[in-house]
Amino acid sequence: MKELTKLLDRIIQRNDINLRELEHNISPFVYKLVPPDQLVKFYAFYGVTPHHPLDFVFRHSSLAGSYFLGKVSTRNSILYKSDIRGDELKKKGDVFNFQKFKIPIARDERIEIEDSFLIKTLVHNFSHDPETLENFFIRNTVSTHYANIHGSPIDGSFLEPFATVDLTTMNDCVVGAYSYIQAGEVDHLNVDPGTVWVRSPGEFNFLYQHPRDRLKKYISFDPERLPQGLLIDFGEDRKEDFERVFDVVKLEPSVSVPTSTSLDRYAVIKPKTRLGENVLVSQRAYLENSWLGKGTNAQEHCYIINSRLEGFNVTAHGATIIDADLEKNIFVGFNSFLQGRADSRLLIGEESVVMPHTIIDIEEPLAIPPGHLVWGLINNSDDLKQNSMAIGDFSKIDGGMVQGNLSFEGGGASFITAFRDRIHHILEANGAFFDGTNTPGHAQKNQNIATNTIQPYTEGELEGVFPTIIIQP
Amino acid sequence: MKELTKLLDRIIQRNDINLRELEHNISPFVYKLVPPDQLVKFYAFYGVTPHHPLDFVFRHSSLAGSYFLGKVSTRNSILYKSDIRGDELKKKGDVFNFQKFKIPIARDERIEIEDSFLIKTLVHNFSHDPETLENFFIRNTVSTHYANIHGSPIDGSFLEPFATVDLTTMNDCVVGAYSYIQAGEVDHLNVDPGTVWVRSPGEFNFLYQHPRDRLKKYISFDPERLPQGLLIDFGEDRKEDFERVFDVVKLEPSVSVPTSTSLDRYAVIKPKTRLGENVLVSQRAYLENSWLGKGTNAQEHCYIINSRLEGFNVTAHGATIIDADLEKNIFVGFNSFLQGRADSRLLIGEESVVMPHTIIDIEEPLAIPPGHLVWGLINNSDDLKQNSMAIGDFSKIDGGMVQGNLSFEGGGASFITAFRDRIHHILEANGAFFDGTNTPGHAQKNQNIATNTIQPYTEGELEGVFPTIIIQP
Repeated sequence: MKELTKLLDRIIQRNDINLRELEHNISPFVYKLVPPDQLVKFYAFYGVTPHHPLDFVFRHSSLAGSYFLGKVSTRNSILYKSDIRGDELKKKGDVFNFQKFKIPIARDERIEIEDSFLIKTLVHNFSHDPETLENFFIRNTVSTHYANIHGSPIDGSFLEPFATVDLTTMNDCVVGAYSYIQAGEVDHLNVDPGTVWVRSPGEFNFLYQHPRDRLKKYISFDPERLPQGLLIDFGEDRKEDFERVFDVVKLEPSVSVPTSTSLDRYAVIKPKTRLGENVLVSQRAYLENSWLGKGTNAQEHCYIINSRLEGFNVTAHGATIIDADLEKNIFVGFNSFLQGRADSRLLIGEESVVMPHTIIDIEEPLAIPPGHLVWGLINNSDDLKQNSMAIGDFSKIDGGMVQGNLSFEGGGASFITAFRDRIHHILEANGAFFDGTNTPGHAQKNQNIATNTIQPYTEGELEGVFPTIIIQP
Repeated sequence: MKELTKLLDRIIQRNDINLRELEHNISPFVYKLVPPDQLVKFYAFYGVTPHHPLDFVFRHSSLAGSYFLGKVSTRNSILYKSDIRGDELKKKGDVFNFQKFKIPIARDERIEIEDSFLIKTLVHNFSHDPETLENFFIRNTVSTHYANIHGSPIDGSFLEPFATVDLTTMNDCVVGAYSYIQAGEVDHLNVDPGTVWVRSPGEFNFLYQHPRDRLKKYISFDPERLPQGLLIDFGEDRKEDFERVFDVVKLEPSVSVPTSTSLDRYAVIKPKTRLGENVLVSQRAYLENSWLGKGTNAQEHCYIINSRLEGFNVTAHGATIIDADLEKNIFVGFNSFLQGRADSRLLIGEESVVMPHTIIDIEEPLAIPPGHLVWGLINNSDDLKQNSMAIGDFSKIDGGMVQGNLSFEGGGASFITAFRDRIHHILEANGAFFDGTNTPGHAQKNQNIATNTIQPYTEGELEGVFPTIIIQP
């Protein structure tokens, strides 16, 4: 696998060069993040469907265990068990509105991954950067376990485990473990672990810092070791269930699937789970003993266990919900980890918003009242008090507020409106509102995806590298 | 599946146009040969290995259940459960000797399939036509169940079930069921079912005709029905075993495989089977309770059951061996069907040659002496007497001979030499003589093939049609 080693050297060097000004010295340890033989072991796969422009170009890349949908290219890159989901990319003829500009889209947008190493990373949505609307690029970047690159062109950056970059153009940044960045455009930043930062320049700035000592139990990333913590262990414990799903060619769903609902065949479904209408379950989602009401969804790396989601619940990429009851219209953001217990369930009232990268892990029953905004790290009702607010009250913030580890500047109303709009868009994109004719979304369009598998050379200098693969309509 | 229907219409029309001068009116029935939903049901697959030029180009084709290896293109074609094995194609820089010509090969040879419908057909070897050495083409052709197109560029032809075209350039011909043609170059022929014809112009002409009435039990092709007979039923009865093999992603071999031996993961191996060194078992071969000695092989659609092959036995594509004991250095030709019984085994002595398309189906024990040439349809020792000859005697034929349904013209020695050379080449190509260093062949080179799967569109106008797929190094 000489060529694969050269490829990894090249990617790491390019990442180093981009990050030379930051105190970032992790590259020697990147080699240890994925044992080389794992890169030869797993097949990659891509979806074929008439609902999205079909255009894959894979060149000189290692793609073990990764999934591709839509218009995607990779070059000189290593993708390990990553999901590159191009089912929300802009299409030729669309018009993108940005400030006073109405920008016509000249060609179907493509996710272009070059000189990058993505580990168990999700790439989704579309480029929100008005400067590069047809090209959602990921370059010279290393992202680690369960990172999300969502609508964010990114160059020369390093994402630690469970980091999320959302709707942000990022250049030469390090994003610490379990940090969430939604900030428009950022350069040359070294973001501490456990930061939750939502900024709309001129409108608002939401900045929360997870307490480092308490976060460590859930996720920590020490350069000399693999990622550690409960969030990592939780996934590892359920790995075998996924292996079973990946080892068979065809898999009949083990539950009844309404005609308006999409259950990906690479999801794990354990008894007794019930799927309502307009439900979207993505590949690598894990459902066990749960009720998913109408218009709910479970994205990549979501675990929903012993829980009931009443309807129109968004469970964003990487979110986990255990022993919880969620009323209607609840949003649970990226990589949130909500863990009740069998004897102390978590209840979330309707219309509540759980911010991305929120951890709720309780030993006593806990109820979040309806219409609340919740964030941060919550182990009990005192934490909840400090890390939540009625959405109505939040909307009234004008100028700023500090509460616990949260500092908020700007207008609460515009923050809440932005979130509400987004949640509505997500539900719509997922097909939650489909009435049999209007507003079909992923839940309807992703039903009949044919999945093809691809494998690398299994011996010789090119061992682990995939041949050039071009798939077009 | 509107597009798929149009594609089939187009292929059938082109085939009709090519065959308009022959009394050939089968095209209306071609539609019935494969139910359309079967064309959507199965994945196709291709092998990736550094040992053969990697170059697949699939355009506007339906490829359900088909396998590809080497340099292959398809365009406007339907391939159903066919094997396109390009592991013997000529390479750039090779020199092809033909009569007084030494022809340099300008580029890697490619199997190019265009406007054709191949059903459960094997395509293998390389173009022997000195006029088209880099392009092994198959055009405007319909071939049906278990046909073999072996080293034979072919245009505008129709192959009935179990027909074999071997080392022959064929233009506008119909080849009847269970006919074997090895004739250099043929045009506008309508070959009766059950013909076995081996011709080397100016050297010899071997022409055998299976008795139509007796052949019918084994294979018949009536335009208005699917192919019928014992040969068809035999495969159908074992279909489920193959389904199991195709339904899992990874399959560990159930028998011990020597390091010099290649067992394809899409072969069926049932207890108790033993594989010796330098053995080649291809995809879609079926082995049960059999002993395969050193340097033996089992190709596509071979069934070897309750049998012992001592060593250096060639079992050509589609040959079946049941309840038989084969001594060393025995050749069993294409689509031969050798069936002993548990209580009346078939014994074949060493150095014997079973001609392609030979049927031996016995109720009493039968022994073929060493060094014999055997052909035709044999149900007992009387048949054997009429349909065999010591190779030494055959070599002495000078001018001609008629024996039973066989008519032979020309020199027996040159016929025997041609066959012997060919068998030696086959063993060499298969890697039977590999000594750990020298003369590796398929048995060694095909060990680490990574197999990728591809699927068609599963809905819409393009249902059943595969996207454009280009795979290159």
